[in-house]
This record gives sequence, structure tokens and C-alpha cells, in this order.
Amino acid sequence: MPTTLSDKHLQGFLGSDEYVGIAPAVKAAHEALHSGKGLGNDFIGWLNLPTDYDKDEFARIKVAAEKIKSNSDIFVVIGIGGSYLGARAAIEFIKSPNYNALCKDTPQIYYTGNSISSNALAELLEICEGKDVSINMISKSGTTTEPAIAFRVFREMLEKKYGKDGAKDRIFCTTDKARGTLKQLADREGYETFVVPDDVGGRYSVLTAVGLLPIAVSGADIDALMQGARDAQDKFADPDLDKNDCYKYAAIRNMLYNKGKTTEILVSYEPAFTLMNEWFKQLYGESEGKDQKGIFPASVIFSTDLHSMGQYIQDGRRNLFETVVLFDSVQREIKLGTDPENVDGLNFLSGKTMEFVNRKAFEGTVLAHNDGGVPNVVLTVDKMDEYNLGYLIYFFEKACAISGYILGVNPFNQPGVESYKKNMFALLGKPGYEDQKAALEARLK
Amino acid sequence: MPTTLSDKHLQGFLGSDEYVGIAPAVKAAHEALHSGKGLGNDFIGWLNLPTDYDKDEFARIKVAAEKIKSNSDIFVVIGIGGSYLGARAAIEFIKSPNYNALCKDTPQIYYTGNSISSNALAELLEICEGKDVSINMISKSGTTTEPAIAFRVFREMLEKKYGKDGAKDRIFCTTDKARGTLKQLADREGYETFVVPDDVGGRYSVLTAVGLLPIAVSGADIDALMQGARDAQDKFADPDLDKNDCYKYAAIRNMLYNKGKTTEILVSYEPAFTLMNEWFKQLYGESEGKDQKGIFPASVIFSTDLHSMGQYIQDGRRNLFETVVLFDSVQREIKLGTDPENVDGLNFLSGKTMEFVNRKAFEGTVLAHNDGGVPNVVLTVDKMDEYNLGYLIYFFEKACAISGYILGVNPFNQPGVESYKKNMFALLGKPGYEDQKAALEARLK
Repeated sequence: MPTTLSDKHLQGFLGSDEYVGIAPAVKAAHEALHSGKGLGNDFIGWLNLPTDYDKDEFARIKVAAEKIKSNSDIFVVIGIGGSYLGARAAIEFIKSPNYNALCKDTPQIYYTGNSISSNALAELLEICEGKDVSINMISKSGTTTEPAIAFRVFREMLEKKYGKDGAKDRIFCTTDKARGTLKQLADREGYETFVVPDDVGGRYSVLTAVGLLPIAVSGADIDALMQGARDAQDKFADPDLDKNDCYKYAAIRNMLYNKGKTTEILVSYEPAFTLMNEWFKQLYGESEGKDQKGIFPASVIFSTDLHSMGQYIQDGRRNLFETVVLFDSVQREIKLGTDPENVDGLNFLSGKTMEFVNRKAFEGTVLAHNDGGVPNVVLTVDKMDEYNLGYLIYFFEKACAISGYILGVNPFNQPGVESYKKNMFALLGKPGYEDQKAALEARLK
Repeated sequence: MPTTLSDKHLQGFLGSDEYVGIAPAVKAAHEALHSGKGLGNDFIGWLNLPTDYDKDEFARIKVAAEKIKSNSDIFVVIGIGGSYLGARAAIEFIKSPNYNALCKDTPQIYYTGNSISSNALAELLEICEGKDVSINMISKSGTTTEPAIAFRVFREMLEKKYGKDGAKDRIFCTTDKARGTLKQLADREGYETFVVPDDVGGRYSVLTAVGLLPIAVSGADIDALMQGARDAQDKFADPDLDKNDCYKYAAIRNMLYNKGKTTEILVSYEPAFTLMNEWFKQLYGESEGKDQKGIFPASVIFSTDLHSMGQYIQDGRRNLFETVVLFDSVQREIKLGTDPENVDGLNFLSGKTMEFVNRKAFEGTVLAHNDGGVPNVVLTVDKMDEYNLGYLIYFFEKACAISGYILGVNPFNQPGVESYKKNMFALLGKPGYEDQKAALEARLK
């Protein structure tokens, strides 16, 4: 199996009765999701996406990616939240966090429009100087502040450099299929467009055009990615908790939460998983963090962070559990040699691979953390490739939906994200928000 | 002041009586620290470091940095935990997270020996192919597994490329002043060495040679960095809680913790602060996370993560508080123009700087999060330069020590970090750990 769950390191933390106890809630969650009658049921397009996606658009994505690869030194992805995290996470996972620094025949890929930092935007403009650039603006509406600012700046840059006609061949918009200012603009200017489906929220959108176009530009195999997701869709459709690792993960999270394990730390031993950690945190934090409840999602990369957060995890407050994502094999192997003088005392590792040492680091850690009172869920993935990533993405997406339903929340909305925006718009003097401005400013004095 | 604290957004969460109530504990912590009689008092060398550092070594660091800059395309920093986080955080903060991608007359800087990932190490070797490389091995003992593995690989690479004689001019070791295998090796081979002081723990070591050599190689002004720390050392020596923002921060953290705010989220609106967030998490997590207590440190970059963790912070479990680090000015400014057609509806921002918009995002967010029940501490820093960073580093270091003493822990040890190592060594068959191996393996079956 591309992703399997082990509950061995939950021993002593969860009893077998507890699994029996939560089974009805899992079954109910399954039925709510698959019947389309659960909370937020207008946003479950991701459920059958791996089989039901738009095949014509998928083919167009590949053609666009080839075009971008052929005429661009740099590809700039403009988007925030779900409109950039999935693509970046997938590219770093499949290719490398050093993707831009490594030799390759595909464009550099940069991400912008995901903050309001002028430092970050100005630097990227500098990096693009003298280079051939294409951009992908990703926004359902086109009016989200961060990407809209970056899009203005990059559109102007491209039109200055290539003329309006040349620029239009280098601007790709992923947006609403029919409405919104970005769609209107793209149609008028002749930019190629791809679709953010109506029934897929941002954090569930990595397997739509939102993620697929940047991922394809990196040279990754998006057919294999979708095949992995499709196989996971089949595999995790079984309502029986005992046979469904995805549902088991959702159940375990809730059982642990209900006994005070309110922070989950996603763990990987591969630095290339760093952005997948961030993708996970959005998926779970945004889906479950509402109504004053939900597991707080955190993340670490080991063994790096064993020398940082490791102390806390071993000995701090005991409201934690860890979910470890392991890989049975990695892309590049290094075998350790023998130093005739053994100055560093490492010769006991001679002939061993780093992967072997890394696995022993995991084994030593999981036992130490268990002894320290931290339950561990262990997910094992075959390898770090497109197929396994598609499978893992679907695993996490479906587990998140089931987990949210068990918790009794709507896992597909994000009402809290609007709160800061309303305040910000009022403070910025945006038309339509004038009423609140004075009251907010008084609170800041 | 280079760093000031505002407690405005704690209103309704902390009463003035509470400050009076905690003042004696703060005074006691101050006395324990400054008298050198508190817990872990053999590791308080950082306290007076900004005035008491080794001036001759400091001068040597600058000379070594000039040499590295003159003969290296790539500078590889080998270290884990405190032996890499501080340097990397400082370089990304002062220069940029895009430091390697930007045009400059200083070497590329890469970090390795901070994980056991062969992917990461093999990629870095590929990146170094055909380039002139110098390395800095940072390890008190020289036997820490992760850096020792990387050092083996890079030393061999350099000796193959430059010969033993050529390599020795490109290998710099930061290690114990007298003992340990790395010091012995360096002396024998003629590598230049710098000192990890005996009385400064890894997470407090960024202003020693551990951090200073890599920081100087990036072209940053380490004199200004130390001057900032020195001014903070003077400023935050006042035992009076009312006059000492550093102590106020330590007190606030404990007051909030004692009323159930057990997770602190460090917030910045600048992506260049990302690694400073990680540095902070090591500093506080490792110092306070023990004896089954301590604040769990987490971090976000806004507005990026307002579209990710924002939902949870606004509406999830109410055991959170935020500490925001703001900058009064940034290095690069962008003013927003006017689009004649206003297709994105952004013309209400015409003539405004992004920095202004970013500040309004903060203001809107702090009020929204307050309304959602999340107290906010706000630290305002003048600008993102060496001087202010030195000041901020010292602020956080001293606040951490005081905060730990108030909590009643030893803020300078990390006993939990050994637990996984012992298991790992046993599982790897390291000489001296044979007894535990069979028992551990049985638990993994």
C-alpha cells in the first residue's frame, strides 16, 4: 500500500474499546460525506475529483506547462493560502526544496502574492530582471488583496517588457469558470484561463488546476499524481473502520483530542516535507479550528528539530500527540564510508546508508516520546514520488473531512478568515467599509 | 528604542493587579540570574557576552570571513540546533530568505548536517559541483551524529578537490576551546578554529563565533550586531518591571500561561522573519518545555498564514496568545499605483505603500484576534538591520531566562534531548549501548 497506518505506538494511550466506541461516529461521518448531506456539502467536489476531473482542461494544463517550460527562465505563481501552498508543497516534495538551485531544464519557480511584504515583492522583481518570465495568477475572484497587488506589479512588468501582445502569452489565470473580475479581465485581454471549481475550497484544491499547472511546470508527472489520488479514492471508500486507514486516522485524532491531546505535531524526517507540513496545517487548522474547538496543528522536521522542539516534546506539557510520515525509500542514497582514524567515532556506521540511520533515529525517537507520554501515529509511504504524493494528499483530505464531521464542525468553511479582512478594509478606507473605521481606530489609540 | 513592548492588546485579559502580583517573582528571577546563583548558572555566559566577548577572536572572525568571501563561491555551514539556527535566522533576517538567489559579491551559503536526510546532503553535493567551496563545521564535541556525517563527506570532497593542503585553508571549525575530537583533529590538520564557549548553550550561542562567522561571510556588519546586543544588555539590566520591557514580556508570558494560555504563537508580517521564528521556538521550547510544563511555542508569518492558521487562531480553542514582532520600516519600499480601469478594485490603495497596507493588516488582525479571545503582545522594532537584530536577540534571550526562572525551571539545560539519542545509538549498535538494543527492538516488533 502507498500509505499505511500503524497504531503500535498508541499502545497504552488508546484501548480497543475506544475504537469500538467511536465506530458509529465514523460510520455516520462516512454517510454524511458520501450522501452529500453533511455540513458544508456544497464544497465536497474534491471527494470524487480524482475520477471526475475535467480531462480536456487537464490536457490544456500540460500544453500550457510545455509552453511555459519552453519560453521561460522563471515562472511566478501568484496566490495565497490554498492557492499556493499545495503547489509549492508538491513541487518541493517531488523535486526538492532546493529545486531552484539545482541544475534542470525546467524554469525557476517563485511564489508571490502570499504576503504584503514589499521586501519580498521587490526582491522577486530584482531576481526576474533580465530573465524571461511567465506568471500564473491564482484567485477565485481576482480581488484578494495580496495576490491582486502582486498581479498588478507583474502584469505591468510583463507588458513593459514584452508589450501587451507578448505579455498575454505569458499570463495564465486560474480563476472562477465564469464570474469575477479576474475572469473578465482574462477573457478581454486573451489570457489563457483555468478553473477553480465552485465546489472545491482552497485548501482542498491542489489536485485542480490551482496546483496542477505549477506542478506540471516543475516537470513533475501529473498523470501519476492523479493516479495516486484515484487509487486512494478507491481504497478509502470502505466504510469499515477496521479496513480503512484513512478513517482510522480520523478516529484516532478524535479519540486523542477527547482525552486532552489537543495539539498534533506532524513529523517528517525529510526536509523536503517542510511545505507539506504547512499544507497539512492549513488543511486541518482551517477545517477543524472553529466553534472554540479543534486540534491545534503544529509541525517539525526531525532530526533537525529534535535539537529544537525535541526537548518540549519529550518533557513539556503532556497535551501533545505526533503523527509521523515515514518513507520506505528516498530518491538519493548515500552510503557511509570508513575513516581509518575514526576521529569522529562514526565507524560503527560504516557501510550503512544514511536512510538506515535516519530510520533508526525515528525508531529511537518514537520509543523515547512514547516513554515521555506522547502517543504516536505512524504513516508509512512507499517513496517520495508523484504517485505516492497523490495518494497521501487524498488520504489527508478525506481523513480531514471525516475527522471534522466526527468533531461536529463544518470542515469546509472558514468564517474566521473574514474577521481580520473586514477590519483591514475599514482601516484602509475601502469603499463600503466606512462605518467601522472610526471605531476601530479608536481602539488602536 | 530599538525594541518596545505594547500591552494595549492585552486589555481585558490581564488586570493591573496581576502585574503587581507577579513583580516579586520577576525581582527574584532577576536576582537569581544576575547573582549567578540560579538554576543552570554554569550556562549564563550569554548574559554579559555583548561586553565580555573575546575581541581578538572577533577580529579573527572578520579576517576569516574576508578570506572565505575572496576564495569561495559557496560557504557550507555544518551544524544542528543552536549550531545553525541562529546564523541562518540572522542571515535571512538581515540579508533575505532569497539571499542565495539575489545578486551579490558574497558566497552562496548553504546549511547541512542538520538532518539525516541523504536527499538533502546529496543535493548539496550536486550544487557544489564545479564551485569553490569553504566549510564551517560547528560542533562542541565533533561527535554529534548529523554534523559529523556531513563533515566526513565534505572533508573528503574538499581533500579530493584541493588536496590536503588546499583543503585545510577552506575548513573552519567552531568547537571546544581545548577538548574534544574536533578540536584535536583541527589542531593536527591545521584548520583554523573558533570557540564555542563553555558557559553558553547552543540556543544562546548566535552572538559567539557559532553565529558570527557565517553571519560575517554573508556581508552583514557584525560590529553593529554586537552593538545592538550591548545596548540591550544595558537597557534590560533594570530590575524594575515597570521600566523593563524585557522583564515585562517574561512576566506577561507567565501570567497568560497561568490562566490557561498554554500556546504562544510568534507572529511576523515579514517572510524574512521565518527562520527567526524557528530560532525563537528552539530558544523558548528547549528552555521552558520540561518537568511536564512550559508554553508550547508555535509561529506564523502573516498575512500568509492568515489564509492558513488564521481560522484556528480566530475561532479555535482559546488556549492561545500571540506575540507580534513589527518593524517600523523595511529595506525595500513599493508604492501602489493607479490602474485606470481599476479591474481589481484596488485603487483605494493608490499612492499608499505596501508597508502601510501591511501595517493595516496587522491592526485589523490584532483587533479581530482580540475580539476572538486571543491576547496579543506587540513588540515594535525600528528596522530590519544588524543593530536592531542584535538588540532583539538579546531581548529574547534575557526574557527567556527570566521567564524560565519565574516558571521554576532550569532554562539552560535540555535533558530530554538525550532520550532519543540513547535509543538511536543502541538501535544503531554504537559501542557502549549494547545492553539496551534487544529490549528496544522488541518494542518495535
